Formats: sequence, structure tokens, C-alpha cells
Amino acid sequence: MAHIQVPEGAPGILGPMATSPESTKALRELVEVLLRGPNTLTPAEREIIAMYVSSQNDCCFCQLSHGAAAAEHMGGDYALVDRVKRNYATAEISDKLKSLLAIAGKVQEGGKQVTPEDVARARQRGATDKEIHDTVLIAAAFCMFNRYVDGLDTWQPTDPNDYREMGQIMAHVGYVRPNWEKTDEAA
Amino acid sequence: MAHIQVPEGAPGILGPMATSPESTKALRELVEVLLRGPNTLTPAEREIIAMYVSSQNDCCFCQLSHGAAAAEHMGGDYALVDRVKRNYATAEISDKLKSLLAIAGKVQEGGKQVTPEDVARARQRGATDKEIHDTVLIAAAFCMFNRYVDGLDTWQPTDPNDYREMGQIMAHVGYVRPNWEKTDEAA
Repeated sequence: MAHIQVPEGAPGILGPMATSPESTKALRELVEVLLRGPNTLTPAEREIIAMYVSSQNDCCFCQLSHGAAAAEHMGGDYALVDRVKRNYATAEISDKLKSLLAIAGKVQEGGKQVTPEDVARARQRGATDKEIHDTVLIAAAFCMFNRYVDGLDTWQPTDPNDYREMGQIMAHVGYVRPNWEKTDEAA
Repeated sequence: MAHIQVPEGAPGILGPMATSPESTKALRELVEVLLRGPNTLTPAEREIIAMYVSSQNDCCFCQLSHGAAAAEHMGGDYALVDRVKRNYATAEISDKLKSLLAIAGKVQEGGKQVTPEDVARARQRGATDKEIHDTVLIAAAFCMFNRYVDGLDTWQPTDPNDYREMGQIMAHVGYVRPNWEKTDEAA
């Protein structure tokens, strides 16, 4: 049972979100801009950053749901997402994304952990100021979402297969829809 | 100098925000709902939660600006805000708010740190489920804002007096205005 009363059967963030429509509207618009808005980072790269920070925060719901969304953006390559989560340094992703994940990992520990050297390395590997900005903000935002989900002790399925349909909706439909109050499959 | 290029002289969050209008719109709407929207927690109580979490994260800009906003909501009682920051247990605030600050402090460390006992204590002191929800979400959101501000190594005035006008605007005008792109005094 979650720390507060939430609708039965709503996994992870969807329970608390259902109890607070005004903040939920703002949160959904934020995550839509961050992960699916116009950007030189692909949606897959941004979902990987979200998944990675959530795994560092040990948030089951966010790492599995955003991992599924990342995989869906990459034609269903769930194995690659798993390799990134286990050790991104050896995974088949770009050197630029690896340098951004290093920054995201520092942000997860605390904002002051990011060093000029971390930022210089990302620039050397082709990252723009906007991409560095967005990496910091996405990582910071998932330090919020992870704490929202776990701080209220929500129910979270632990089988990755339970997140596949959610990942498809997150990747291909998105986080903000006209009827999201009624059809709360994704967060 | 911040980690990325931002407008000169823009303190704290205002620099990065100026570089990213779409995410800034979503962030401003979120903080407006959380700190100034309709709520049984007063704006002063919510600004105190924001200030306290920011102080635990050692984010100078956020703790001084939201501390100023809290004081402005309480008729300019900056001394009370300082006492809450130094030791909320002995400050002249309600037992309910103290129990919510205990929860906020746990969220700052990590979502899983919040215990059923923390929540039960807040309930015994009169907190509703919605107030517990909002406390967790505000605390989580400031773990985001603090990381955004410090993860980009923004310039932050260290004199509390430099935040008084900002606090007045935050408290009495708010975080979302039609022309916020042009008049970025508050965040």
C-alpha cells in the first residue's frame, strides 16, 4: 500500500498523479517537452538519459518504463537498453551520449558534482550547449520523478514485460493527450 | 562563468531558463501550481518546504530566493525563516509543518527514505493525504530545481539582501506571467 490513498492498480507515478490533476498537467507537459519536444538529441537518447538516472536512483517504475520507451524508439532493441544500464561505457552508443550520461550521473549525485572537465569532454565529443543544458535538466527532472514515485511508496511491477505496452504509448503517443485523465496508461 | 553560455547578469535559474523557453514555460507552470495554486497548505508553508529542501541541497540561489518569498508571505519575517533553516524543530511553526518538513528532508535524501512512521506522524498532526502528497512533490521538485541551478554552475549572489525584491515578486506576482520572457526577475 502506498503512503497515501491512490486508485487501486495504478502503477508507479499514475497513482499519485490521479489524485492531483493540476500538478499532473504541469508534470506531463514538462516531460513531453523534455523527452519528445523538438531537439537535436533524439527521443531515444533522451529516454536513455531518463532511464539511466532512474536506475541510479533505484526507481523501478521509472527505469523500466523509460527503458521500454527508449527501446521502442530504437525498433524494440531492449537488449541495448539493458547493456547501457549495466555499463554504458561499453554499450554501442555514441561517444557523445556516453559523455552526456557521465554528466547525468553527476547530476544524480548532486548538481555541484558536475565539473568543467565533464562539460569540456562532452563538447569535445560534439555536444552543444543546448544538449548539455537539456541533459542536466532531464537528469534533474528524473531526480524529481523518481522521488515522487518512491517518496509515496507506490506499487511498481517488477517484471520488465509489464512495461512494454506502456513504453509503446510513451514513445509513440506521448505524455500529454486530450483525454489523459481518463486513459492514464503512461506517465 | 556557468558551464554553458547564459545571459550575463542573470542570477541562478534565470540564466539557463533564458536559453530554453519551452522547458522554462513548463517549469514555471509547475512551480506556480505547487507553490501558489489552491491548496490547504499556505503559500508560506509551501515556500518554507522549498527553502528547506534547497538548503539541504546547499543551493544558494533557491534557498535565498524561496526563503525571501516565504518571508514576504509572512509579512517580512525573515528572522523566522532563518530560524526554520537553522533548526525547524525549535522554530515557531506548527507541529504539522514540522512533520511535513521531516518528510521533505527524507525525500531530499531519496524517495525510499520516507517511512510509514514519518507519514503516520504527519497524519497525527493533522496533515491530509493531499498535503502529504504535495509535500513529497514539492520536495522532489526542488531536488530538480536545485540540480538545474547547480548542475550548470550558475552565478548566484550570496547576500540575502539581493533576494528581497525577487522574493516580493515571487510571493505577490508569482512565477507565471504573460510577459515573463521579457521580464525575468523571478523563477
